[in-house]
Amino acid sequence: MTRLVSYDEAPPEVRRVFDDIKRTRGVPDVNNFWKALAIHPPTLERVWQNLKQVMAPGALDPLTKEMIYIAVSAAQGCEYCIASHTAAARAKGMTDAMYGELLAVIGMAAETNRLAQALRVPVDAAFRAAPPPPIPKA
Amino acid sequence: MTRLVSYDEAPPEVRRVFDDIKRTRGVPDVNNFWKALAIHPPTLERVWQNLKQVMAPGALDPLTKEMIYIAVSAAQGCEYCIASHTAAARAKGMTDAMYGELLAVIGMAAETNRLAQALRVPVDAAFRAAPPPPIPKA
Amino acid sequence: MTRLVSYDEAPPEVRRVFDDIKRTRGVPDVNNFWKALAIHPPTLERVWQNLKQVMAPGALDPLTKEMIYIAVSAAQGCEYCIASHTAAARAKGMTDAMYGELLAVIGMAAETNRLAQALRVPVDAAFRAAPPPPIPKA
Amino acid sequence: MTRLVSYDEAPPEVRRVFDDIKRTRGVPDVNNFWKALAIHPPTLERVWQNLKQVMAPGALDPLTKEMIYIAVSAAQGCEYCIASHTAAARAKGMTDAMYGELLAVIGMAAETNRLAQALRVPVDAAFRAAPPPPIPKA
Amino acid sequence: MTRLVSYDEAPPEVRRVFDDIKRTRGVPDVNNFWKALAIHPPTLERVWQNLKQVMAPGALDPLTKEMIYIAVSAAQGCEYCIASHTAAARAKGMTDAMYGELLAVIGMAAETNRLAQALRVPVDAAFRAAPPPPIPKA
Amino acid sequence: MTRLVSYDEAPPEVRRVFDDIKRTRGVPDVNNFWKALAIHPPTLERVWQNLKQVMAPGALDPLTKEMIYIAVSAAQGCEYCIASHTAAARAKGMTDAMYGELLAVIGMAAETNRLAQALRVPVDAAFRAAPPPPIPKA
Repeated sequence: MTRLVSYDEAPPEVRRVFDDIKRTRGVPDVNNFWKALAIHPPTLERVWQNLKQVMAPGALDPLTKEMIYIAVSAAQGCEYCIASHTAAARAKGMTDAMYGELLAVIGMAAETNRLAQALRVPVDAAFRAAPPPPIPKA
Repeated sequence: MTRLVSYDEAPPEVRRVFDDIKRTRGVPDVNNFWKALAIHPPTLERVWQNLKQVMAPGALDPLTKEMIYIAVSAAQGCEYCIASHTAAARAKGMTDAMYGELLAVIGMAAETNRLAQALRVPVDAAFRAAPPPPIPKA
Repeated sequence: MTRLVSYDEAPPEVRRVFDDIKRTRGVPDVNNFWKALAIHPPTLERVWQNLKQVMAPGALDPLTKEMIYIAVSAAQGCEYCIASHTAAARAKGMTDAMYGELLAVIGMAAETNRLAQALRVPVDAAFRAAPPPPIPKA
Repeated sequence: MTRLVSYDEAPPEVRRVFDDIKRTRGVPDVNNFWKALAIHPPTLERVWQNLKQVMAPGALDPLTKEMIYIAVSAAQGCEYCIASHTAAARAKGMTDAMYGELLAVIGMAAETNRLAQALRVPVDAAFRAAPPPPIPKA
Repeated sequence: MTRLVSYDEAPPEVRRVFDDIKRTRGVPDVNNFWKALAIHPPTLERVWQNLKQVMAPGALDPLTKEMIYIAVSAAQGCEYCIASHTAAARAKGMTDAMYGELLAVIGMAAETNRLAQALRVPVDAAFRAAPPPPIPKA
Repeated sequence: MTRLVSYDEAPPEVRRVFDDIKRTRGVPDVNNFWKALAIHPPTLERVWQNLKQVMAPGALDPLTKEMIYIAVSAAQGCEYCIASHTAAARAKGMTDAMYGELLAVIGMAAETNRLAQALRVPVDAAFRAAPPPPIPKA
């Protein structure tokens, strides 16, 4: 169990990040993850700025990003991250059917990963070829 | 390097699976993964039937499933699976922008997973609550 | 914590799988793993059919299979699976001495894995050679 | 690629370990793993003494130990260790059928591990109970 | 194999990052990692800014940080990262003796990690207690 | 939860190891890890002798070794080991600032590991070259 820094005891540089998290997400308090990271303000600030940029809507929609996050977290065995991002995915509209298929893909990938590694399957020539370089823009 | 079973030397129960893979995917030959799995026909048959079911279109579209597959494979460090499913995702329409965001989410998740684990962050009460049971259908 | 589907609230396609698990294993109720998977009946059905096939006696005896299962689960850090398969191995006759040696091998393998990876040891030529192809049966 | 220390250039404390490996295994030269570890003689000596003790016949036979080693190595993605221990298991009598079932169990365990983690399945009360303490021998 | 973006074909926002890497590190060209990340300029920019901040001298010296980097990379099985950070640690003064001890600690930690997980050892009460909260600075 | 062997019920060969741990560390009782390992005395003895040798002061100081241990444990997701070695590092003088930077490096390494793996970045020629062989001492 780690020390959790509450808003009341937090120094100004931590409160600024907590305030930005609460405003960006429209929540009354930050999750334990941020309260734990607050023991090192530069890491709290850096990780939050990164996450805000990466999880913003873009070429992939926010729900797809949450499901990818769950997949990585399950594959790396992080219980906290699985719990928080499953809740986030649910809040963004993940239905029971989508969740069931997400689980199925995670399970299949985990199985075929280990089979391919155990068998030391050589990468097919078709997958080894690098895609053509992009047209330089400069 | 593993032994790869080619179509020509394959016994009938392996050819049947190879034929189904080629027909389902519309490809002239199967990938090395299947040629390697063919050393154990019951596993070849079982894994292919599973994969065919799991990766079929459903509540999640095939491209989303491929990206989830890549996420798990990167998190577990399976080079073969990363190579084959990145090729599959490209073939299903993953653009450079989508790929870049997929990478970004994988990277962020990997980082916050390890931070949450290193800090042993306790799961928030809000994430611990189980969702209400579904209405019994029987 | 996930939602657990009990027998009483389960729809018919879930009850059918639960009944088969109870009959096959000779147990009065299914473990939490199956109650959790039951939120997605196709995955429940698929995983159970796979597990039943894979764990059946064959060229390897059931206890050896359980110990391999424990090894993978420890190496991937799955607490639930370690707990359930250690109980299963005990029920199938794993003695204290066998369990101690299983732990010792898991620990040594974990250590030499990371040493070989840290050192980037090149695979010996003797291990790279693929075994001769089997005699075609068709 | 790491530096590999050959017998000819090895200092006496390394040659002593190399000689013991060759004698114990009845082989004309040591594998690359040992040549790589030789850059740090205390670790070479320590790891070899450990491995010799752990892999000796005991309550588990040598082939079962090799298969458990493969399982951990596949689950941790160590290509070198998979290659060397698959060769060792083959040399100790692992048949195609045994190898196929080993792969199948590794794959299933990998899949159910990630499903149990993704679902955060609570450990059943039956698995939580510690076994009774042994009768004190002192 | 991924597409590698060379300086000559790179768009201005990529060249700007490449120039900063070369200037900061005093090297004539960037490593393949950066050329590969350049396919997604926002991720290239973000990861470089993070790395520059995190690896700068602080409460821990740069060599200690490189050794921690190697430890994580070995534990996660990333060959590229092991290769590049071992080279970086060597350039920052890691001796053969330091490298040997680093390897030994990585190996021991890998072993005891899996033993503690396999045994499901309960965390001692002494380790569970959170440290006292810091004196609020605000 | 595993069975924990207390000093009072321990056989002589376990008590001897417990006594050495208590004497070496200057503690009144051993941690749960050792009480759990005591179910297999040869493994208890072996792991303790290894750990004592590896963690002794050498070319790396004990605090640096503890931080490397934490890094591996976080990367492999071992909660028990993270807890015990974080306590040990604190006891050896790890300040809040050092801990914060340790976390930051672990997080960055985790992120770039997965990016390098997902992109299948080829190892630079400069990293592939093996260092020159050492001058033979014999």
